[in-house]
Amino acid sequence: MKSFLGVRHLARDDLEDLVDRAAWYASTRLEAPGPLDGLTVGALFFEPSTRTRLSFEVAARRLGAHTLTFFPEQSSLTKGETLQDTALTVLSLGVEILVVRHSTEGAPDSIHRWTGRPVINAGDGANEHPTQALGDLLTLQRHFGTIAGLSVAIVGDISHSRVAGSLMHALPTLGAEVTLVGPSELLPTATETALATSDDLDRVVGAVDVVYLLRVQNERGANIDSDYNARFQMGLDRAARMRASAVVMHPGPMNRGVEISDEVADGPRSLVLDQVSNGVPARMAVLAAIGEGL
Amino acid sequence: MKSFLGVRHLARDDLEDLVDRAAWYASTRLEAPGPLDGLTVGALFFEPSTRTRLSFEVAARRLGAHTLTFFPEQSSLTKGETLQDTALTVLSLGVEILVVRHSTEGAPDSIHRWTGRPVINAGDGANEHPTQALGDLLTLQRHFGTIAGLSVAIVGDISHSRVAGSLMHALPTLGAEVTLVGPSELLPTATETALATSDDLDRVVGAVDVVYLLRVQNERGANIDSDYNARFQMGLDRAARMRASAVVMHPGPMNRGVEISDEVADGPRSLVLDQVSNGVPARMAVLAAIGEGL
Amino acid sequence: MKSFLGVRHLARDDLEDLVDRAAWYASTRLEAPGPLDGLTVGALFFEPSTRTRLSFEVAARRLGAHTLTFFPEQSSLTKGETLQDTALTVLSLGVEILVVRHSTEGAPDSIHRWTGRPVINAGDGANEHPTQALGDLLTLQRHFGTIAGLSVAIVGDISHSRVAGSLMHALPTLGAEVTLVGPSELLPTATETALATSDDLDRVVGAVDVVYLLRVQNERGANIDSDYNARFQMGLDRAARMRASAVVMHPGPMNRGVEISDEVADGPRSLVLDQVSNGVPARMAVLAAIGEGL
Repeated sequence: MKSFLGVRHLARDDLEDLVDRAAWYASTRLEAPGPLDGLTVGALFFEPSTRTRLSFEVAARRLGAHTLTFFPEQSSLTKGETLQDTALTVLSLGVEILVVRHSTEGAPDSIHRWTGRPVINAGDGANEHPTQALGDLLTLQRHFGTIAGLSVAIVGDISHSRVAGSLMHALPTLGAEVTLVGPSELLPTATETALATSDDLDRVVGAVDVVYLLRVQNERGANIDSDYNARFQMGLDRAARMRASAVVMHPGPMNRGVEISDEVADGPRSLVLDQVSNGVPARMAVLAAIGEGL
Repeated sequence: MKSFLGVRHLARDDLEDLVDRAAWYASTRLEAPGPLDGLTVGALFFEPSTRTRLSFEVAARRLGAHTLTFFPEQSSLTKGETLQDTALTVLSLGVEILVVRHSTEGAPDSIHRWTGRPVINAGDGANEHPTQALGDLLTLQRHFGTIAGLSVAIVGDISHSRVAGSLMHALPTLGAEVTLVGPSELLPTATETALATSDDLDRVVGAVDVVYLLRVQNERGANIDSDYNARFQMGLDRAARMRASAVVMHPGPMNRGVEISDEVADGPRSLVLDQVSNGVPARMAVLAAIGEGL
Repeated sequence: MKSFLGVRHLARDDLEDLVDRAAWYASTRLEAPGPLDGLTVGALFFEPSTRTRLSFEVAARRLGAHTLTFFPEQSSLTKGETLQDTALTVLSLGVEILVVRHSTEGAPDSIHRWTGRPVINAGDGANEHPTQALGDLLTLQRHFGTIAGLSVAIVGDISHSRVAGSLMHALPTLGAEVTLVGPSELLPTATETALATSDDLDRVVGAVDVVYLLRVQNERGANIDSDYNARFQMGLDRAARMRASAVVMHPGPMNRGVEISDEVADGPRSLVLDQVSNGVPARMAVLAAIGEGL
């Protein structure tokens, strides 16, 4: 694998292989030296992040790599340097793999194209967040034993979510059935997606194995109706109507009291913390697959 | 030891044991691998800090642990995540011990209660700063050979100081006699403390072994009288009236020219840099004692 | 070597020795443990920096040292601590070598004088940036095989550039001939420098081996004429009039479209990324030379 820019164009075999690798890292304690021993991973986070940045840092270290972290607010970008020059500079310092988060869709692809070097997309605008998706796939695989045949509702501001942007392709690729649920103005149109859509969570909630809640992202400019909570919040009422084995997921950070209630967030159906834990072996799988190609 | 949330409720034996451990780490060069080998310490600093954060980082590394540092200004907290979810997320990434600084009193206790995981208090509001106190105890132990029987004046804004909040309990526990000195409006009342108090430093300064100066913390909203310097600054005049063997301490950062003069800060009585150095083995002692319980 | 505060007063032998050491590190893969094994380098960056800070971090790690990074915006300096106390505090935490960037000229010298401990100047005001200069010397040495006899034009805001402040002394020391080029108000006067000066890049560009472009530093308060680009930008026209073997250098970050055009920045004459790469072995050479004296 040269880079990991998204899951949208990955074939089923490749995606399954990554999930299998991630499952292996989730259950195996590595002995030093790891497969990335002595390499340096450069983390370029142009947007704030806690969990994703630290998750990559843990993953890289478990594989034997060092991490160089680039903080944009302390950086030359405040002096007008281009993204391309920043990326080339960090690579020239002795970095083998770049991990990039950026508010512009396609920024990781551009960096890969400009530099010819391995780039991992850690979230680009509203486009994709493929390592989050891979950790979520691992979570489903470990919880249900399989992904094929699962029925998943992704609920919220689909149009502005890069997590949805990755999951709505990866899940069907692995044989899951996806329904996109949210206010109609935040859903893709029929011409934009071949997936089922619904603006009525109550009609969907009892018919799926997974309710995957998205964060209400006020900071991305989505206009959320004042009745959003009433129509789409996952609370005890709706949880009670789920299938007995069904689960609730959320990529975090959660807005408790908006898209999810405290009772559901902390309840027995919640896989939220499993998603965080599984994000580490998922990123190890991606880093190791790229490391093999170096 | 499960957590280290404060010194206020520690028994004398437990506190002496920690000082002894710290003294051992201060005088011993560890061979790798250390007692925390392969573990990860998560540093959650919700308030700015140089010395405490770096001191924990050095201490953790000397014991063989890695440190994951969480910078709140880059974090999901700007997106409305709760403290509880942030702590659980960092733990789920693979962190064994949390080090927490927070402006809210009791925040470390809350995190320990919510998560059941080891938490070290690195300063909570105006409540406690117990690892600073432990380093100070080690400094006294190494300088005087014993803490029992010492007479200590803590001088300044007692009410708003978390360092005082820890020392005014730890010192008497180990047999030292404490007098709280400051403007009356910044002292606890007789009903709040069983310790001696005074608003006249000149009457106290010649009768103690230690003058422990607190930082004048304008940022905490204390109103300092315009005659504070005249009444409470430790300058050459007052230093000249101290016992021959008496010392001056300060937790830093110092406001030179306010609570301490340059001559005293840099003079032969000052143990200020010893306090910084001893903070590292003090934190090693706490980390190692918690690590044994994992 | 005790400290590395500048190149201005270095003798030719000492400078050549450092370039030779840097060349050795540039071509040698170190086996662990390195010459700084187990030591700690403290990075005190009071001004924002990407490349210099990360370059030191990579260099220190390749030599076996850890790095403690001090972020001023999170620091006690916001509470009024003096520079001297901050430096002494970081040293007392267990740091053997300080790397200092500061907006005040002479700050690294002051810290060395106050503490008696090894200090490396990572850029002080408009004075010097000696490790940048050393990496540039290594770049020239590796590209041309020798520095003696080269003819170098340094172009731009000479008066406000700490890179120029180091190069205009180091290059002549090693036998290169230097011409300072820029608007007359941004050049040193004849009484300030013994070097040739010119305000006409077109008369110089065809007669030199190296055009070293400086960043137009609006943030340092230089008033740049509106015709700066026309008179001093290195574009394809001027590049076409250079000697066949001549090269273009720039310390970064580049203002593309101001002092350099895209075509030249990305063109075959550009050594810009070599300068970044060579900055790492240059800093290894300085760190190792200091480490030997510990």
